[in-house]
Amino acid sequence: MSADIGSVLKEVEARVTPSEELVARVMRVRDEVFRRLQPLAVDFRPELEGSVAKGTWLATDPELDVFMIFPTSASEDSMVNRVMEVGKAVFDKWEVSYAEHPYVRGWIDDVPIDLVPCYGVNSPSEMRSAVDRTPFHTRFVNQSLSQEQKRDVRILKAFFKGIGVYGAEIRVRGFSGYASEVLIYRFGSFLNLLKNAQKWKGKVNLGWNCEPDALGIPDPVDPSRNVTASVSIRSLSTFVAASGFFLRRPSLRFFWPSGEKANVRLDQVLVLRTGRPSSIDDILWGEIWKAADSMRKQLAKEGFTVFDVGAHAGPDYVCFAFYLSSKMRATAYLMEGPPVNLIEDSIKFVDKWSSHEQTLRGPWVGDGRWLVVRALGGDAKDVLEAMLKKELKQLALGDFERQIKRGFQVGWATDAIESCDEECVRMLRSFAGLKEPWVRP
Amino acid sequence: MSADIGSVLKEVEARVTPSEELVARVMRVRDEVFRRLQPLAVDFRPELEGSVAKGTWLATDPELDVFMIFPTSASEDSMVNRVMEVGKAVFDKWEVSYAEHPYVRGWIDDVPIDLVPCYGVNSPSEMRSAVDRTPFHTRFVNQSLSQEQKRDVRILKAFFKGIGVYGAEIRVRGFSGYASEVLIYRFGSFLNLLKNAQKWKGKVNLGWNCEPDALGIPDPVDPSRNVTASVSIRSLSTFVAASGFFLRRPSLRFFWPSGEKANVRLDQVLVLRTGRPSSIDDILWGEIWKAADSMRKQLAKEGFTVFDVGAHAGPDYVCFAFYLSSKMRATAYLMEGPPVNLIEDSIKFVDKWSSHEQTLRGPWVGDGRWLVVRALGGDAKDVLEAMLKKELKQLALGDFERQIKRGFQVGWATDAIESCDEECVRMLRSFAGLKEPWVRP
Repeated sequence: MSADIGSVLKEVEARVTPSEELVARVMRVRDEVFRRLQPLAVDFRPELEGSVAKGTWLATDPELDVFMIFPTSASEDSMVNRVMEVGKAVFDKWEVSYAEHPYVRGWIDDVPIDLVPCYGVNSPSEMRSAVDRTPFHTRFVNQSLSQEQKRDVRILKAFFKGIGVYGAEIRVRGFSGYASEVLIYRFGSFLNLLKNAQKWKGKVNLGWNCEPDALGIPDPVDPSRNVTASVSIRSLSTFVAASGFFLRRPSLRFFWPSGEKANVRLDQVLVLRTGRPSSIDDILWGEIWKAADSMRKQLAKEGFTVFDVGAHAGPDYVCFAFYLSSKMRATAYLMEGPPVNLIEDSIKFVDKWSSHEQTLRGPWVGDGRWLVVRALGGDAKDVLEAMLKKELKQLALGDFERQIKRGFQVGWATDAIESCDEECVRMLRSFAGLKEPWVRP
Repeated sequence: MSADIGSVLKEVEARVTPSEELVARVMRVRDEVFRRLQPLAVDFRPELEGSVAKGTWLATDPELDVFMIFPTSASEDSMVNRVMEVGKAVFDKWEVSYAEHPYVRGWIDDVPIDLVPCYGVNSPSEMRSAVDRTPFHTRFVNQSLSQEQKRDVRILKAFFKGIGVYGAEIRVRGFSGYASEVLIYRFGSFLNLLKNAQKWKGKVNLGWNCEPDALGIPDPVDPSRNVTASVSIRSLSTFVAASGFFLRRPSLRFFWPSGEKANVRLDQVLVLRTGRPSSIDDILWGEIWKAADSMRKQLAKEGFTVFDVGAHAGPDYVCFAFYLSSKMRATAYLMEGPPVNLIEDSIKFVDKWSSHEQTLRGPWVGDGRWLVVRALGGDAKDVLEAMLKKELKQLALGDFERQIKRGFQVGWATDAIESCDEECVRMLRSFAGLKEPWVRP
């Protein structure tokens, strides 16, 4: 039973557009920040950027980006010092965050405000750090998008969020807020974008001058940059798939997925828990995906099939999750030896396996190679544990190597949920029972 | 502990060279056949061909090939009639065999004699049936090979036999007797051939004018023909591997493999037994490999990994053997759905699996495709049985389709050896414990 596409979009609009009261509150906070900044703004110029400045913010995410624009003559050290001083003076409640450079996050009336230092440059080609481009984005969106298009940006952001591909962070590998704006600018409207996405197949390049990882779209203010460089093939595929389903079966489900599945089988999911090596999210998630991939490959070499890899980062720990085809390894495992024309390697292989206690069959000659069927068997939990103890060096786990040396636990998700905190349990349950929430009947 | 290569070859020569008594007996039989044929040879000319005529026969295989050479004006029907009449008149004990055409096999003094009709042509280019080429082969070998080389042909044939690649039949897919002679002619000696084979990598073409399946060597009497067309990649690889091992560790083991392994695990081998559809070996084995390959593919689709396929043909039954990685199917199985840009297929897939009782995880979007983890499990025996009952038509089993409809048994080799005859049990044991016999320490 599908709803009418127009009424779904009307409802989404109503939910994502900030109310008059919320707008008034956010504007009051903005005025208050600028009032407090004014006496301090002797070596920089404060300017509002981001989705509030562009009028594309979601009612659920009021957040102010206040940039402190310095002359290009300022030194990087002095800028970092100044943003700390200013933040301390302006906010009662604040903390230091890190992107390419440190910045200050503070709160007024529960509205979060990022205080970000940047250089004032005349064009993006002169920029000295990534954030120097932001003021050009703000101007571009305000000059190029109509009110209807800004409404469609809000709808698109909510769509991306609902299907799980919103955010350029390494954790998500999805679409940034600015990417949403450029997509609406390029395709005119939300529905037109979705219709066009139906023609996308594999990697898609919409005029960027290089080969993209998944999707290439030049930044209108800096065409050599790919606006969607962060998007993975999986995120792009998810968007294409969801677009097709939404056009045929429009529903609020795409924007606000319903809760968890009641029955989830956790016993195919192998969990590794260890310490958290980095406090900066993007660095951490880069390491997480690298380490997960390395462990998946090693598990495959050991005879296990891993269907999917997931992870959860807590404040001081990280949980890896591996979805396995089987808890127990197959009893027999085909091991490929060297090609028959490499005689020295062949002799070494044959001598080793010819009377090895694990040899079930062989060595024999298959199509061009020596082969042996090896008796393996064993529990994936034990194999991963042994890998992390005996083969840690070869695993190339980056920053996780030190954490794992300090300590780790390996177990099945069934047991893990008893000892993990709520957030981690939620991740494990949704990983084990993963299903695109918008396909639910 | 390796023996000296020269003394090994001396011992092989002593064993494969027919004794004076045996030669005298075979020659007496030859004279007797020709004596009996003479009064009948009014429309054909009898001529001795094959390994006895060429002096390359093994002491273990005394066998005479007597060709009845007809003028090209003779009709095929009349030739077939004549060989039957002549065979009946000449032999006390005889039977009809079939190659491209029927021929008669008879025995005198326990020496088998093949009576084969062919056309007498002036050159292989004029030949009308495959056997018309044989007299040219006999002449070529006798004109081109020295006595030492004929000795090396015997050694090479014994080597091919020992490592299991002797014979051009579809069952073996190995080297024919004539291929052995051409190889010695090409490389001068047995040891020089083995040394040269060390340089062979992947497919090997030694001057044939087309791309060979595995090995291409032009027939000296008919260069457009590949002398080793029957050789599979596996047989070629086995020869290359065994050559390298023999040169480094010469031993009689390569020529006369020792007996069975004591301990063989039979429980990874799934056995199917059904009727034998054809009486002609080459046709039967073509069907066997085709059917085995088809069943292997279907088992893979069902989530089973088949490491190797074997078969045994009894007088009225055929046994297929599948070496499996696991008797039980993995509990979870990753099923690939359609690419996300095919929206109609995607909707069909998602609707089917979204609330299917076997769905463990998904449907979700992976890299470009819909995915579902399906609960499978189950015993390979039951799955193969169900396949043969419910999906017989799709399996494309050729002549075996009718046999299987009539009846079949599926079971593990452990049970099968209790109900099979000795020859079949020997095949199952050697299939289950397969190991190149010449690598034994």
